[in-house]
This record gives sequence, C-alpha cells and structure tokens, in this order.
Amino acid sequence: MGESFGLYRLGDDAGMMPLIDVANVACGFHASDPDHMRTTVRRAKKHGVKVGAHPSLPDLQGFGRREMKMSRDEVANSVIYQVGALLGFLMAEGMQLHHIKPHGSLYGMAARQEEVAHAICDAAEIFGVPLFGMTGTMHEKIYQQRGVAFIPEFYADLAYAPGGSLIVTREHEAMDPGLMAERCVRALQDKKGTAIDGSLFPVGCETICVHSDTPNAIDIAKAVRSAIAPWH
Amino acid sequence: MGESFGLYRLGDDAGMMPLIDVANVACGFHASDPDHMRTTVRRAKKHGVKVGAHPSLPDLQGFGRREMKMSRDEVANSVIYQVGALLGFLMAEGMQLHHIKPHGSLYGMAARQEEVAHAICDAAEIFGVPLFGMTGTMHEKIYQQRGVAFIPEFYADLAYAPGGSLIVTREHEAMDPGLMAERCVRALQDKKGTAIDGSLFPVGCETICVHSDTPNAIDIAKAVRSAIAPWH
Amino acid sequence: MGESFGLYRLGDDAGMMPLIDVANVACGFHASDPDHMRTTVRRAKKHGVKVGAHPSLPDLQGFGRREMKMSRDEVANSVIYQVGALLGFLMAEGMQLHHIKPHGSLYGMAARQEEVAHAICDAAEIFGVPLFGMTGTMHEKIYQQRGVAFIPEFYADLAYAPGGSLIVTREHEAMDPGLMAERCVRALQDKKGTAIDGSLFPVGCETICVHSDTPNAIDIAKAVRSAIAPWH
Amino acid sequence: MGESFGLYRLGDDAGMMPLIDVANVACGFHASDPDHMRTTVRRAKKHGVKVGAHPSLPDLQGFGRREMKMSRDEVANSVIYQVGALLGFLMAEGMQLHHIKPHGSLYGMAARQEEVAHAICDAAEIFGVPLFGMTGTMHEKIYQQRGVAFIPEFYADLAYAPGGSLIVTREHEAMDPGLMAERCVRALQDKKGTAIDGSLFPVGCETICVHSDTPNAIDIAKAVRSAIAPWH
Repeated sequence: MGESFGLYRLGDDAGMMPLIDVANVACGFHASDPDHMRTTVRRAKKHGVKVGAHPSLPDLQGFGRREMKMSRDEVANSVIYQVGALLGFLMAEGMQLHHIKPHGSLYGMAARQEEVAHAICDAAEIFGVPLFGMTGTMHEKIYQQRGVAFIPEFYADLAYAPGGSLIVTREHEAMDPGLMAERCVRALQDKKGTAIDGSLFPVGCETICVHSDTPNAIDIAKAVRSAIAPWH
Repeated sequence: MGESFGLYRLGDDAGMMPLIDVANVACGFHASDPDHMRTTVRRAKKHGVKVGAHPSLPDLQGFGRREMKMSRDEVANSVIYQVGALLGFLMAEGMQLHHIKPHGSLYGMAARQEEVAHAICDAAEIFGVPLFGMTGTMHEKIYQQRGVAFIPEFYADLAYAPGGSLIVTREHEAMDPGLMAERCVRALQDKKGTAIDGSLFPVGCETICVHSDTPNAIDIAKAVRSAIAPWH
Repeated sequence: MGESFGLYRLGDDAGMMPLIDVANVACGFHASDPDHMRTTVRRAKKHGVKVGAHPSLPDLQGFGRREMKMSRDEVANSVIYQVGALLGFLMAEGMQLHHIKPHGSLYGMAARQEEVAHAICDAAEIFGVPLFGMTGTMHEKIYQQRGVAFIPEFYADLAYAPGGSLIVTREHEAMDPGLMAERCVRALQDKKGTAIDGSLFPVGCETICVHSDTPNAIDIAKAVRSAIAPWH
Repeated sequence: MGESFGLYRLGDDAGMMPLIDVANVACGFHASDPDHMRTTVRRAKKHGVKVGAHPSLPDLQGFGRREMKMSRDEVANSVIYQVGALLGFLMAEGMQLHHIKPHGSLYGMAARQEEVAHAICDAAEIFGVPLFGMTGTMHEKIYQQRGVAFIPEFYADLAYAPGGSLIVTREHEAMDPGLMAERCVRALQDKKGTAIDGSLFPVGCETICVHSDTPNAIDIAKAVRSAIAPWH
C-alpha cells in the first residue's frame, strides 16, 4: 500500500484498505514519499488496519524489482533507515509498527541468500517486530534460527514455480479472482500451494498477500476475503 | 556531522566528535546515507555525544542550501521521515533523540517564514524533543508560541548581518579561530553578537554551533571549547 | 509528453500523439526516465510529430512544480544536461531537436526572472533551436534581446490571471473542451486571451499547448484541433 | 574525471588533466552533476584532452560499483541518456565525443555478460564512437562482432586476477608508482599483464587507464607517463 509517488498514482488504496487486516506500507525507496506515507498510515488507522514496513532496495525507477549487489551492512542500514522513517509516521498517529516485510527483489534475495536474510533480521531485531516471509526459504531458516518471529505468508495473486518459489515479474497482470480465492482456501486447508504446472508444494499461510498494483486487485481481495471467512 | 555520502567524505567527524557535547546528524536528504548515519551515531555513542536530527530540504546536489517552495505539510512530512530514519539508528544503539535542528535553507526558511516554522514544530511535537534555533526569528516566536522547547544557538563560524540574521553561503570558508572564540565569549557574557559591520545585536546562546565542513573546523572547535570552559 | 516514470503512468500519450504537431518531451528531471524517453521519441517519429525538449528543475517528487533557487549557471547546466540527454534519443531515431520549452516552475521562473530567462537562452544557443514562451514576459524580452528565436504559445487548458500571467497548480483539473477551443480561436483571431475575471489581455499564439496530464486531455486536444483547423 | 558531486570533491582533476591525453568523464549516474560536467569538459578543452563518456549504472550512493540486474534495453537507454547529456556540454565547448567507456560495475558486467556488451554497442552505434574495453572479454568479442571500434586498455593501478580479469574494489588504494609504471611498460612491450600471483596473461594496450580517485593518482600518472614516453 502507499505505492503512489508525487503526482503518480498506483493502486486503489482507498478501495483496498477496508478489505484487509494488515498493510505493507512502502517506505520511499521503491515507491511512495513522505506525503503518501503520511496519507497511507492515516488511512490504515481509519480502517483499523495494522501497519507493517515494506522496505526495498534503493531503486525508484525499477520499483525495487531489479536486484542489486549490496553487502549485509548496506542492506541492514537501508532497511533500518526506511523502517525508522515509517515509524515516524506511525508515532504521528499513535500507532505501533506491526511487522517488516521486504519488497520485491529484496524479498526475493532474502529468500535465497543467507546474508540478505541476516541483514533483514539485523533490522527486525532493532524494532522488535516479526518478519513476513515464505516457508521453505532462507526467510524461514534464518529468521527462526535468529529467534525473530516468522510469519509465513501465501500469495493470492502471484504464480509459483514447481517447488514453491515465486515467479516475480516487473509488472503484475490481472488474475482470475475465483481461482485465486480457491488457491488460498487450499493453502489454508491443506497447507499446499499449486505451481504453474499443477504440482503441489507445502506452504505456510498465516497471512495472505494481495498486491494493490494488480489491475483487478480489489476483485481479488474481495473474492479471497469472502472465501477465507471461515478461517478469519 | 555525518555529512559524508557514499565514497564522498566531508568533514573530519573523527576529529570533531571528541570536542563536542551534542551533534546535529545529517539524515540523508542534503548529505549522508544509511551507512554513514549508522557510523555517525555509533561514533557519537562512543564519545558520549548526544544526537540531534539535522533534517533538510530534499536536495542532495545543492547540499540543502537552495531554497525550495514547499507547503507546510510537505515540509512537516519530509522532516518526520528524516527524523524517523535517524531514530532507527538511535534505537539500534540504545540512544535517545536529543533535539531537532533543521539544516541549511530549511533552517533559514523557518527563521523567516511562519508556515515553515510551524511545519518544523509539527514534526518536533511528534518526537517530543526541543528545537534548536535563533533568537529574534520565527524559530523563537513560533516554537515558543506552540510550547515546543526552544534552545537558542550561536554560530561560532558564520558571519551575521547587522540585526543578527545569518549570512549563509553554499560553501564555508576558514575563519580565524581566536576571533571566533572571542565572539562566543561575548555571546555568553554579554548576550551580544557582532555583525559584519561591527554593530551588536542581542543573541541567545545556550548552545554553540561549529560546522564540521568549515576547512579549519577542528581548530575553531578547539579554540571555542577552550575559551568557553568557564561556562561549560 | 513522456511523463510516465518507471511503472508509473501519466497521460494518454498514445491517444494524444496523433492529435498534435509538436511534442514537449520530458527529460527525466520532473518526470520520465531513459526508457520512457526512448518510447516517447519513437512514438513521436511514428506520428510525424516534431520533438522539443521539456527540461525542468531537478524535482521528481514535486513534478518540477516547486520553485527552487538556483544560480544562472546551475539552471543553464541543468538544461544543457537534459536537452543533451534527449538529443541522444533523437539521434537514435534520426530526428532533429525542434525547440526547447522549460517545464513547470522553471517556465514560470523564466517568465519573471531575468537571470533564469538568460540561463534558458544560454542553453538554447548551444543547441541552436527556438524557445517556446509567453508574450509579455521575460521569455519574450530576454529571448528576443539575445537573438534566440521566440515562439509565443497559448495555453488551451490553463487559467490566466488578469494581465495574462498563468495560474499554475500542482495538479491539473478537467476543463470544458468547447470553452477551451473557443479561447484558442479568440487567441488566434483577435490575439487576445481571456483571464479568469473575463478581462482580456494581448497574447501571441504561434503554437497552442495542451497538457497531457489534464484528466480530459484528449477531448480538449480534439476540440481545439478541430476549432483551429482554418488556421492550421 | 569529473567525479565530484555538489559540494563533494573527489580526485585531483586539476592536477591530473595536464598528464593525460584522453579523459573518461562521469555523466551524473555514479558521480558528477551538470555543473561538474561543465567544469570538467572546459578543463579538458583547456589542456587539449579528448573527452570520452563514462556512463554508469544509476547508483550514486554506490558510486556505480554495485551490480544491478537490468535488461539490455534499460542499459542501452541509460547509456544513451548519459552520453547525450555529456554531448550537450561538448557541444557547448565546440568539442567532439571521442569514445565511450562504461564505468565500474557496468564495465565489469559488459566484460562478462553478452547482453550488457550488446547494450553498450547499441548506444555506441548511435554516437558513432569507439568503445574502450578489455582484451579477452565480451568487450572485445561483442564490440568487434558488431563492427564497433574496440580500443583495448590496460589498467595501471588495478590488480588483475590470474587469467586477466580485474579485481574491482569499492574504494581504490594507493599503489606503488614505480611498479605500476613497470607493469605498463611490460604491457606495451610484451603485450603481457601480471596477475596478483605473478602469472602472466595476454593483454591489449592501446590506452592506459589511471583512476583519479586512487589516493596517489597524480604520482602514478606521472610515473606511467614518463615510463611510456618511448611509445607515446
């Protein structure tokens, strides 16, 4: 959420906010700016939505979806900077930071590279909050090894490769809401995800992620929310 | 302090830190980056130096010394972002935020423009810290009117115009350390500053500012520190 | 034109390009990036549209619509940088640079401040192209004094204050296409513009500007194009 | 050359310029800004030094020395943008663009990745200039395959790994000028470079590169210039 920037608008945050419990809020490195961060935090407060930080690699032009080689310290410090900045806006509204979830390529790098996962932990320990991530990746392994609370998430709107790794693209395409809702129910019921070839993989699912920049994001969110009501 | 950026170095922070009690730490908008912020906060901790935030207009190329027209909300949100970011690094070291002091043109604009001074207060109230500023300006008037603690500061190394307004230049020049120390003593003793034409003006002086990017900053800091020892 | 940035989209360039003869193309300082510049230049070529450079103050977050204090040299060098960058993409397509028209606050500053108008000329002389600007402002006075070709333009979609100065806002609002077309006809026919209070002012009109980020930009462009056909 | 930025200074350009024949001039993505680019081009002109463009990945904080994943088009467009920008300053001084040499990680990526080498060629073809690069890498292979003039260069001041690949570090350290000069003579005489383990590798050497940000850059340049005088 909060991925607009200056005059540019991205995602229907006003439509999405009433449909979610927790928001991952952009921190200015891949999207957003101080004004949009303020607006987004206020909107979350209004709807009783918890706010997590969504820090990124420093790449506004690439929307944080181009990998960069950075050292563990560089990643950790970049995350501390962004999470701290968001914390300022949360303090302004008397809110707490709920969690941290890295964005885009930083998320993908932390899933695969031990050093990056450690960097994310280095930051999370300072703020004393859990980390969102994917089962069966370095997220789970390193975060748990470090004793940082790990909350496994399932993606309603992204395709998974066989084995369960995400297929990340620069821009998101519209997905079938019914199908997406079904996938979420299976993830909750059977702890299984479905890959693009139809094969299943084990998956943790304590939170479900819907991207606000998917063209039909609102429809997906509504379908998912309705389908998972029994577990909610 | 902490005004280096990437490979670029500015100011002898290692030399200056042992000579001061309080540091104004750059927050990434006119200078610094997450790595230099971390280093600077750690260096301050090592020397028992208190840390204040030194937020700026968003202008890295102009070192925050080019005025920009921004609304009150834009200024406030930019300051909240930067102070929050610094707070992250202070939390990492178990330190407290001591104060906020705007940098460069933002400082000058807040001295003259009511709306900008209000924006600075909007941010300071969130973090619950005092503001550094100049006597006889909107700093003093608005900060006090708003009930935000105001700490008047005297500049050891900048020239004052008759009446007491600062003469701010893009780059700082070397100043005579003995003369600068004398000016500080007069400010403490008589509550008077000396303008470039020799005329005096009333001045508050609860803290003395020495810029770390003045070519002979260390010599000035040493001379001033020694001269003001009786009041220290 | 070409005011998208990264994943962010602004303006219906595909819809607008067939309706115009000349495009002002963003150069990356207030909007656009190298990829969108390339796409925009190619799109212009496809439709036989001439390309002018639309350089800005360095302010992506503020879309170049926040004034900044910069010296004449700083402005000139910023403009040379941006126009040169666009020239690279024009060379890639075997096209010529048609003119330069400063964007947003840089345009407004050049209208009022002699030094800024000179800076724009400093750049235009290097590239040997005309400058677009407004009658009765420093654009006209300084550009003509310097012997740089001056092409007066009329705004189809912005409100004018009495006397003929533009009322520039951060975001553009939808305007009545019929009314806008009428204003353009009057500008062509009578060399008069109409201010918001109904008063008239003298206006030059060798080119008509329609903003692509106005919500109903395409409708305005169509109405204007159709109405001015006799002069086209 | 020209790797200063805003108030930050890097490299003794004034000292180095009289010692070289050709300068690689930074274009604002890893270092420099429009003002420093102008100054650098003027300084080159004054000393009769030819100017090549030194474009980089978009990473000012990392000085272009952090690898980024970018598509061929993204790289090509970024390079066109930067080279075009430099061309503006060359036109201002009535100078020609001499060549293109990618900076830092972009140079290293082009040496190893075919797609990146192609992207560099895509840009070079537009400007019709040769490319500087390393023998035995994708520079040589792709540039020559594409029919773009390839000028092999030897590094006076960087360590080579066995086999001849460069060991690139984020910051450069002082090197022994005499030793560096000797290496250059061997490169010219025997077409051999010496790796850190003493092993030799074949090397082309039509131009010799000395970095201006090496602490003792001037001493290295003087020693090299004097030693290679017979071939000059």
